[in-house]
Amino acid sequence: MQDVLRRPDIPACLRICAGTDGSVTQLLEVLTGKTVKVETIYQKVIKATTEIAQLLGIAKGGEVNDRLVILKVEDIVYVLARSLSPINRIPPAVKTDLMRADIPIGRILREHKLETRRDILKMEILHRDFFGKLPVLSREYKIIYNNDVLMWINECFPVDDRWKM
Amino acid sequence: MQDVLRRPDIPACLRICAGTDGSVTQLLEVLTGKTVKVETIYQKVIKATTEIAQLLGIAKGGEVNDRLVILKVEDIVYVLARSLSPINRIPPAVKTDLMRADIPIGRILREHKLETRRDILKMEILHRDFFGKLPVLSREYKIIYNNDVLMWINECFPVDDRWKM
Repeated sequence: MQDVLRRPDIPACLRICAGTDGSVTQLLEVLTGKTVKVETIYQKVIKATTEIAQLLGIAKGGEVNDRLVILKVEDIVYVLARSLSPINRIPPAVKTDLMRADIPIGRILREHKLETRRDILKMEILHRDFFGKLPVLSREYKIIYNNDVLMWINECFPVDDRWKM
Repeated sequence: MQDVLRRPDIPACLRICAGTDGSVTQLLEVLTGKTVKVETIYQKVIKATTEIAQLLGIAKGGEVNDRLVILKVEDIVYVLARSLSPINRIPPAVKTDLMRADIPIGRILREHKLETRRDILKMEILHRDFFGKLPVLSREYKIIYNNDVLMWINECFPVDDRWKM
């Protein structure tokens, strides 16, 4: 287990969401008893920089879907999530959902019955402009499908009392 | 979301473990901050009955690994879990771990880098002799691998104050 998940100053509900290898949306819905809403901040197709190409194991310049969303429950933002997916590796049916609609990734994978695994890469406390001066628990992981990276994800969870639920 | 996960009389930590589509062991470790121990009650190879054959999508009489374990943290039992796996579908390297050692299934799947998905079948409150008169939250799910059932799992969580952590 990552050290940050043992810190007593991190609320238990946040440690749970950051520690799961399953769907965060699903846990948020169990914790709050309410439906999670996804709001897309941007979604665009970019060319992979050297750094992104390395993260995804693709060639530099390859097309990548770049998506930034927030997960909200009743106007409270719990997660800011950025995902990068190599366009060529996204199954056609999944592509439509991923590039068009405000659907959580866990639900997309489930509805399209994809068999995957999640590899947690790192977890750390840092700051993100989006959350102002609040510390943020950031984790990075990869969703692996057919032995390749289908998606690199960075989730940022603001660390404060909103998790005392 | 299953109705039982909205019941206020079910402790939040139990709702979380029963509601995840990820590893229960991992969540238990985050919740308690301690290592989960798996104790095998039995592990045997049986011939599939009509009912088991149907659950797993195999022929009646096919060989099935039948495993009953408990998950404990410091002598407190949190989960009683029975799993049924068609022997023919278990990758050889996984078979050794699954049939020999007291290793949680989530960890086995992760260490062998299997890509899978979990389909929740049902969730209900009932009783199990193992937990005496306590009500038990029982859930059944399938782990799907290569489009076939790799494992049918029934997890029983005792409903009481042990989840107030």
